[in-house]
Amino acid sequence: MSSSNSAARIAAAIEQRFGERINPQAEAPGSNEIARMLEHCTHRKWTDRALTPELLRLLCAAALSAPSKSDLQQTDIVNVVDRAERAAIVATIDDMGWIMDAPVFLVFCGNNRRLRLMSQWQGTPFPNDHLDQFFNAACDAAMIMAAFIQAAEAAGLGCCPVSHVRNHADKVSEVLGLPRWVFPFAGLCVGYPARGNRITPRLPLAVTLHTDRYDESNLREQIARYDARRHMLQPYGRQRDPQRFGKLEQYGWSADKARQYAVEERASFGGYVRRQGFRLD
Amino acid sequence: MSSSNSAARIAAAIEQRFGERINPQAEAPGSNEIARMLEHCTHRKWTDRALTPELLRLLCAAALSAPSKSDLQQTDIVNVVDRAERAAIVATIDDMGWIMDAPVFLVFCGNNRRLRLMSQWQGTPFPNDHLDQFFNAACDAAMIMAAFIQAAEAAGLGCCPVSHVRNHADKVSEVLGLPRWVFPFAGLCVGYPARGNRITPRLPLAVTLHTDRYDESNLREQIARYDARRHMLQPYGRQRDPQRFGKLEQYGWSADKARQYAVEERASFGGYVRRQGFRLD
Repeated sequence: MSSSNSAARIAAAIEQRFGERINPQAEAPGSNEIARMLEHCTHRKWTDRALTPELLRLLCAAALSAPSKSDLQQTDIVNVVDRAERAAIVATIDDMGWIMDAPVFLVFCGNNRRLRLMSQWQGTPFPNDHLDQFFNAACDAAMIMAAFIQAAEAAGLGCCPVSHVRNHADKVSEVLGLPRWVFPFAGLCVGYPARGNRITPRLPLAVTLHTDRYDESNLREQIARYDARRHMLQPYGRQRDPQRFGKLEQYGWSADKARQYAVEERASFGGYVRRQGFRLD
Repeated sequence: MSSSNSAARIAAAIEQRFGERINPQAEAPGSNEIARMLEHCTHRKWTDRALTPELLRLLCAAALSAPSKSDLQQTDIVNVVDRAERAAIVATIDDMGWIMDAPVFLVFCGNNRRLRLMSQWQGTPFPNDHLDQFFNAACDAAMIMAAFIQAAEAAGLGCCPVSHVRNHADKVSEVLGLPRWVFPFAGLCVGYPARGNRITPRLPLAVTLHTDRYDESNLREQIARYDARRHMLQPYGRQRDPQRFGKLEQYGWSADKARQYAVEERASFGGYVRRQGFRLD
């Protein structure tokens, strides 16, 4: 892929993603990768082509080379190879049978256990039983999964994160054999994508990128415009809970997200995290 | 950079990072990027070369294109341009004056506020005041920052994450003007690196990569070997708290991390998060 091609891809992706027009820039280092990142999309359909074990291991190694808070290395990856085990996890998730089709299914876990064990082994005190310990391990797992996705997409693969492994985290923990202080962050389906990328529009950078101070002036208008832009480019195929909330003429992102969280979702997660040994003070 | 070169770089980086020997593989898509990811390191010294505003915006756009839990888009990036403002943040952090030298300093924030505002605007209930809301926003910010780092490194830049913006999160929030339900995840220094990459050894994949079930058999032996490998390749320059814990002949990673958390660190973060409006039930 030539660099001038990358520049044109970048401009096209920025317009589709953020509704922003930029002039294609001159050739620059990393243009091809940045174009690919801008074109990112989630994949839920894969070809039959298998990943080699060597490639999967290499992608995990690349991901586990990503930054780790204070060099604590608090992420583990479980590669769920056994079909019955994957089915047991998928059984805890409504309407996601397609997870069974993914060539690879990984679970990224936060691990605050090694630090606590090392503390015991070294005979040092551990006066840190509070929220930040859980937070660090969770965010470490998130960063490693994000890095895995970048490595996988560079290799021509497509991924789908599955946060629903936290819906019944107790059961998923049991299946994966996660001990105290280890918890699932998210699953990830990986394979060679059967379809091309379709860029989902995102909020304009005027909303999410700030200079010096957080600024939400005109937020409501910005979101209304974004809702309209999405509706024009990629209207939702169905509305959530029309019996409860009615049917809208223009059903945008903000309506969809508000309706999604108008029902209780994953309220049991805090209890699970505490049972795994964490204090969240 | 030719592909065979990438394959050799990959094999060298895997050996240095994980203590694992692999045969250089044949040319494969993404090899160059995977090599760069394996060679990742944190940078704290930069040249005087400035980033153009266009490049910074492009990197933010690439990062904000990364996966977002349920398409909720719960990350904001604050670019701290004002020197006095950056100094006010750095004043909350011990011994990190070098942050002032970074050409760019960003703060990545979790934002669960937009979802709550949209809920109000849509007139829908929000029966989701529990841990998962905070967790989702925090992990979203972590994934976006990880993606930013990948984009930046692709463009030849070097970064240093700064979790210490959470040490006095109240003060940092005030400086950045973060309202209820928005919180700092981490700072990030960005610039053109003044030094080459130095690969820090990581735990062997036998510890962090599992098949089907989490396995920590031989963990203590594995960590002892890792401690020894690190000590051989990159011994720590100083030992923490020798008055309190004595001076060790072989001071490894596990001793360093145990000592680091033998003092209370960031115990105030949970209180701050609750004051920002979150329930962590």
